[in-house]
Amino acid sequence: MSPPPIVRSRKSLRTTDSPINFYIQKALETPGLISLAAGLVDEGSLPCEAVAQACQAVLLDPRRGPAALQYGSTQGLPRLREQVLHLLGQADGCSPHELNLTPDDVVLTTGSQQLLYLLAEVLLDPGDIVLTEAPSYFVFHSVLQSHGVQVLGVPVDEGGLCLPALEELWEQLARQGAAERVKLLYTVDYFQNPTGWTLAAERRPQLLELVQRFSRRQRVLVVEDAAYRELRYEGPDLPSLKSLDRDNRWVVYAGTFSKPCAPGLKCGYALLPPEIREPILHLKGNHDFGSAHLVQHLLAELIDRGEYQRQRDRLRPLYRHKRDVMLDELAATLGQEAGIRWSRPAGGLYVWLAFADLDTGPQGALAQAALEEGVLYVPGEFAYLPADGERPPHHACRLSFGVATPEQIREGIRRLHRAVRRVRHSTGTASAGQLNSPAVPPRGTVA
Amino acid sequence: MSPPPIVRSRKSLRTTDSPINFYIQKALETPGLISLAAGLVDEGSLPCEAVAQACQAVLLDPRRGPAALQYGSTQGLPRLREQVLHLLGQADGCSPHELNLTPDDVVLTTGSQQLLYLLAEVLLDPGDIVLTEAPSYFVFHSVLQSHGVQVLGVPVDEGGLCLPALEELWEQLARQGAAERVKLLYTVDYFQNPTGWTLAAERRPQLLELVQRFSRRQRVLVVEDAAYRELRYEGPDLPSLKSLDRDNRWVVYAGTFSKPCAPGLKCGYALLPPEIREPILHLKGNHDFGSAHLVQHLLAELIDRGEYQRQRDRLRPLYRHKRDVMLDELAATLGQEAGIRWSRPAGGLYVWLAFADLDTGPQGALAQAALEEGVLYVPGEFAYLPADGERPPHHACRLSFGVATPEQIREGIRRLHRAVRRVRHSTGTASAGQLNSPAVPPRGTVA
Repeated sequence: MSPPPIVRSRKSLRTTDSPINFYIQKALETPGLISLAAGLVDEGSLPCEAVAQACQAVLLDPRRGPAALQYGSTQGLPRLREQVLHLLGQADGCSPHELNLTPDDVVLTTGSQQLLYLLAEVLLDPGDIVLTEAPSYFVFHSVLQSHGVQVLGVPVDEGGLCLPALEELWEQLARQGAAERVKLLYTVDYFQNPTGWTLAAERRPQLLELVQRFSRRQRVLVVEDAAYRELRYEGPDLPSLKSLDRDNRWVVYAGTFSKPCAPGLKCGYALLPPEIREPILHLKGNHDFGSAHLVQHLLAELIDRGEYQRQRDRLRPLYRHKRDVMLDELAATLGQEAGIRWSRPAGGLYVWLAFADLDTGPQGALAQAALEEGVLYVPGEFAYLPADGERPPHHACRLSFGVATPEQIREGIRRLHRAVRRVRHSTGTASAGQLNSPAVPPRGTVA
Repeated sequence: MSPPPIVRSRKSLRTTDSPINFYIQKALETPGLISLAAGLVDEGSLPCEAVAQACQAVLLDPRRGPAALQYGSTQGLPRLREQVLHLLGQADGCSPHELNLTPDDVVLTTGSQQLLYLLAEVLLDPGDIVLTEAPSYFVFHSVLQSHGVQVLGVPVDEGGLCLPALEELWEQLARQGAAERVKLLYTVDYFQNPTGWTLAAERRPQLLELVQRFSRRQRVLVVEDAAYRELRYEGPDLPSLKSLDRDNRWVVYAGTFSKPCAPGLKCGYALLPPEIREPILHLKGNHDFGSAHLVQHLLAELIDRGEYQRQRDRLRPLYRHKRDVMLDELAATLGQEAGIRWSRPAGGLYVWLAFADLDTGPQGALAQAALEEGVLYVPGEFAYLPADGERPPHHACRLSFGVATPEQIREGIRRLHRAVRRVRHSTGTASAGQLNSPAVPPRGTVA
């Protein structure tokens, strides 16, 4: 007799597999494939020796070794929390004191993803509204879907979040009486995933003003996901939204050591306004009462030795080169075709490639042709949440120059070019005129 | 002008600080204190050199080093999942094949606590019912409270969960039409936290039969929290409930490397019935898309070298000695007083000390006197959830011999004895006759 069914929670029923997992898994079965899809980091430059040395130093120290292998605290190693503040102060050119911040305002998490999850859990009930960029980071979209909230996308352009569109959306919500359901505004404001674009300097204070203006009955928190900030290849470092929030009231700054150091350490951090620090810690106490303690000691040692800083600085020219290889190859191949544009990111890991005509979806001809040619991209529609049951924009791709070597990037773009030509040849579409009429999402644009 | 308030989620409002944190923090301010409260592990025996060597071996290997510092998968390192299965098979004397288990059924988590959290999230909606031992592991109680579920405690005795009491409770629920809200039965079935007692061999199949019998419309999953299984100081290893669940349908087995190896690695694991494996992974994908990858490589290396197994075996005589020191000192001191009993655990980290008369609560005279004498215990009431607003049983203490040295254990028990005498002297209570009339909780007993 088969046992009766397991009855799952409402939250579990709302929590689906990310489409990207299925897609990547399927693609992994294709031998010889070049993945420009994965958000992994460059492998050859991972700091194996430096971490091994830090590990020796920490574990063979009779005081720190046993401490590192013992339980830590829910909030995380105090020394590393101090260092996080110091590094942020350096990046923003101001002291933690000026920002009203102390190590008590920092929490260390299992990657910055855990912080995003905890934030959603602390703030969101089904029916609440979250404002995000469209397109945006799809794993956070999954988190929001799981919490049963309504996600409204705001278009982005080369200068990041379009503030007039945000204002218009918010006014519309206010007229509908829905503005007080807005709890969070989520922005990847440095070298965004998936477009590579950065929130322009002049928009930063304006964004905060807008959020404050529309925070009438309840405070709308800004989540500044700065995951790619350290991977900056040109231009000055822009001040964080956090640094403009002098009283530590409006902005949660989420950072990570995954991109500038090593994802395998899985250590993220956040700066939290005081009203949500304890609630976040109580939840994290239930999740795990503290992330891996050894890893926190290793990072503190790497920072004390300057190894972390050297690694971060070493990565810049390396990724800049890979980005340039991708952009050059795009110009040499797809640049010869009509109706194709792409972003030119000043940092991060991604180029956003937009077609006037082609359907880039996982079931479409381009995805199929690309697989047959041996290259994988992330269909742009994964970076949107469908609104009102409509299919989201599906004429763009996210291309990553993170894990692929320069040779693989070059060859991957060539394969993509061949796939585009095959599809266009067989369907006979595409002309320059179509560039101006991409599919426009309900609230947002492929840009 | 102060900003408007942050409006938190219903879940956050249900998630409170564990009382133990406040208590421990307050106590930490007392210099010279001996803590018999903390659930930490023995510090001198932590395998610093072995982990340092494993770290060198992994990170300086040109293939594994970069892999260990790169992102891993949500489910965790395949090699370590294989090893987990192998170790479990060894402990239970059967092959994974016989249990219908493959490495696909294993998930690696940020300590076993994360698994407990994910399970609660996947299964529980507010109003659902969870059956636990009374007393039980208080951090899981916090998780359950946060999920808004009703927690019903079943008494435990020297043989673990009292099955007649469980059956009676379940029949009562069935009569009330509430049985179909029962989703989980949680048991720490080896050397329980906080009593130190183990579920007797003959009760194991009976427990499973009972669960199957009462799983009428929905399946009630058994969570077997085996966190202390490897810390066994005498007697044979009893078969896990999991090993009695031949079709992998009823039992989630939660294990950890924290106790038998090192909490600082923060790696737990679970064996999951197939119907909840994907739902758990989807949620974990949102939490962190995989725990720290480096740590998983380190553990795989420690197991391959046999270092993990040697460490686990080395710990047994060490903790056995500390347990014996605590039991001997209890006999020599509190054993001379009337109305006091304690458990004699065959493993784990805890002794449960029950008074016929004294209030052990954090606001009581004993807690105050103990602090003044310089010793800290966990008030037993923290290990119960209050039912119907009534104060839970408050005449026991949890004493840990985990982190204290033998000398500290001896001195700590002496201090506790002085505290007991001071309180009894000042209140003039206690006689042998009172032993038989301890406060009895609504559903459960201090035992």
